[in-house]
Parts: sequence; C-alpha cells; structure tokens
Amino acid sequence: MNEPNPYQTQRYPLLIVISGPSGVGKDTIARSLIDRQPDSFYFVVTATTRPPREGEVNGRDYFFVSTDEFARMIEQNELLEYAIVYNDYKGVPKQQIRDALASGRDVIMRVDVQGAATIRKLVPNAVFIFLIAESEEAMVKRLRERKSETAEGLQLRVATARQEMKRLCDFDYCVVNADQAQERSVESILAIMEAERCRVGRKPVVL
Amino acid sequence: MNEPNPYQTQRYPLLIVISGPSGVGKDTIARSLIDRQPDSFYFVVTATTRPPREGEVNGRDYFFVSTDEFARMIEQNELLEYAIVYNDYKGVPKQQIRDALASGRDVIMRVDVQGAATIRKLVPNAVFIFLIAESEEAMVKRLRERKSETAEGLQLRVATARQEMKRLCDFDYCVVNADQAQERSVESILAIMEAERCRVGRKPVVL
Repeated sequence: MNEPNPYQTQRYPLLIVISGPSGVGKDTIARSLIDRQPDSFYFVVTATTRPPREGEVNGRDYFFVSTDEFARMIEQNELLEYAIVYNDYKGVPKQQIRDALASGRDVIMRVDVQGAATIRKLVPNAVFIFLIAESEEAMVKRLRERKSETAEGLQLRVATARQEMKRLCDFDYCVVNADQAQERSVESILAIMEAERCRVGRKPVVL
Repeated sequence: MNEPNPYQTQRYPLLIVISGPSGVGKDTIARSLIDRQPDSFYFVVTATTRPPREGEVNGRDYFFVSTDEFARMIEQNELLEYAIVYNDYKGVPKQQIRDALASGRDVIMRVDVQGAATIRKLVPNAVFIFLIAESEEAMVKRLRERKSETAEGLQLRVATARQEMKRLCDFDYCVVNADQAQERSVESILAIMEAERCRVGRKPVVL
C-alpha cells in the first residue's frame, strides 16, 4: 500500500482574509503587515473608485480606478468579489491572488464584512480574521476622527459597524486592534499565519 | 433580546497537548517552553516510575514516583490518563491541570501518542500538537543517540515510532522539530497558542 510520506507534507500557501467593521483600522494593520514582512507574503491590492486619502499610494494601498474601469472589471468577471461601500466601489482582482498563490506565497487580503461573507462561500478553506476595536467607545471615536466624515456619514457608519459586529461568529479568529497597540494586533495575525501553516490536513486554496 | 457583548469575549485558558513519536524531542521542547515563558502558562509535570535521566530534576521534568505510589494514584482516579511505556508507568495528574486552568493560565502537557488519543476522547476541545523529526533518518539517529538504549530497545522504539507517525492525522497541528532548530519549533508552538487564544467560539476546557 502506498502511504503518504509524513515527512514530505506539502505546504499549500494560505489565503488570509482580514475583515472587521468599518473604522476598526483594517488599512493601518494592512500597512503594518506589509512593512513588517514585505517578501514572505503577498498583499492583495483592492481596486476602488473612491479617491485616495492622505498618504495613500496608488498600487500600494489601493488601485484607484475610474468608475468606467471598475465596470469593465465587473463585466469581464475579473473580481473575486466587489461591493458598493458608501457610494464607492471596492473589489478584489482574482488574477493577483492566483498568481501569488502559484508563486508559493501566502496571500493576505483585506475586505469589508460583506465581502468576507462572499469569499467564505467561494473559498471556504481561506482563513478568516475579524478585527475589532477594544470597545464600542473606541470604535466610535475612531470613526469620528476620520476628517472626511460628515455628521450623517458618521451616524451611518456607527450603525453599520454595530451590525457588522454581529458577523464575528462567521470568522475563524478575532483579533482586538486596540488604540496605540497595533503592533500587538500584527503579532497576533502573524501568529495565526504560522499556526495555520502547521495545521494538519490543510487543502490547497482554489479560486 | 439580550445579546452577548462582543467586546467582552471571555478568554478561556487553553489546554495544549504536545505529543509525537518516541525520540522526537518532546522533553527538550518542553524544557525550552518552560525556560522561555515561565509565568504565562503552566506546564503539567508527568508522574513516572522510570528513573531520572541525567540532568532531569524531580518536580520540574517529571515527578519520579515509586510503583506503589503510582498504583495508589491509579486506584484513586487521580490520573487523566496513564500508560505503560517501555515497562515504565507514566501518567498525568488531573488536579494539577484543574488548578492551573482555574487560575486562568494556559496549560501545556506532553504525552505519548497513545495518551494523546485517550485525552482527545476525554477533552476534545484541547489543542493537539504533533511533533515530528525532519526525516525518518533524523528520528532513527536521535533514538540511537540515547545512551540508555540497547540494540533491541532501539529496534523496538524505531518500529513503534513508525507506527506512531501514522496518528498524525488525529492532531490539529504538526510542528517539525528539526535537529539544531528547536527554537523554531518553540516559536511555532507559541504561535499556535496565540492563534488559539484568538479563535472564535472557543469553549472552556472541562476535565
């Protein structure tokens, strides 16, 4: 009988989905991860029709594309998932992920809570991480501090974030992203990736 | 409706079971873990009737007990599991684990593969880690280097280790404990512990 050699366990690259309610700091954590380990994994760059915030760089933080270009990507089925988030389109280009996985690198992507639910259906053996603030007050404070926010915009985001918090149960892991302690969150995410590399019986990710 | 507050997720202490075939280096890894983080978790001290090896300290590496004392512990149901391993008894005292979990600390225990199977039935929500050598050759080499080994003893252990390797599929995680790279294995185990602390929907361990 031809049994598999346990010493030659194949290491399939991981697909890590980082999500969480609006304002929790997904973008900050994403940037810290990129800064920490630039070569050992691939960070998916989301395409968006929203204008860049201060300090954001095209091709690093997002691909800032026109509405026409985004429409073309939808039509040609180039996106793993996409959504309208506060009147702006955001979507995840598939080919980037396929290429990175094929090169053997772990892939990290950051999506909103709705997007994560879509991806969970399409790619159940991805690893789903939910970021939360340390408290409801901290979450509201962070949403308020976004200069781009109007009063109504803020109210809408707070209500949405509260609803999004209820999806925590659909995720594999929950990481508290406390104010002034982002490095701690990054450490936890890196630990989750290392643990998942050690997981027995992992199957390859297929998109 | 009274919904749970997601910001006050209770952190249940973990029970981490480290196992693996004979000779893989469970004891060395255990000692490194104790040396690295003496206060953040509790390491279960196994009771054994075998004589101490060089450098082993009673109460730190094992409780070295007489056969009479071990028989008493079996009779009074004080052991989570016990087994005869190469003519020596080894067993895990329950009360130690209960006390440590009650104090809020994560608990790590090291057991042979047969013991891990028993514990999995009793405590399915413990976390099961399987240590393996980097290759079959490395495993045999390590068994050979044990001075206490006779030629027949070695042959028996190699055959047993090969059988034990087949139980890998019953574990949650597999960590390669390569020669000269024990620190890497310790890092992986610490990462697994951090990841499991972040796991959504974890239930408390009950013995």
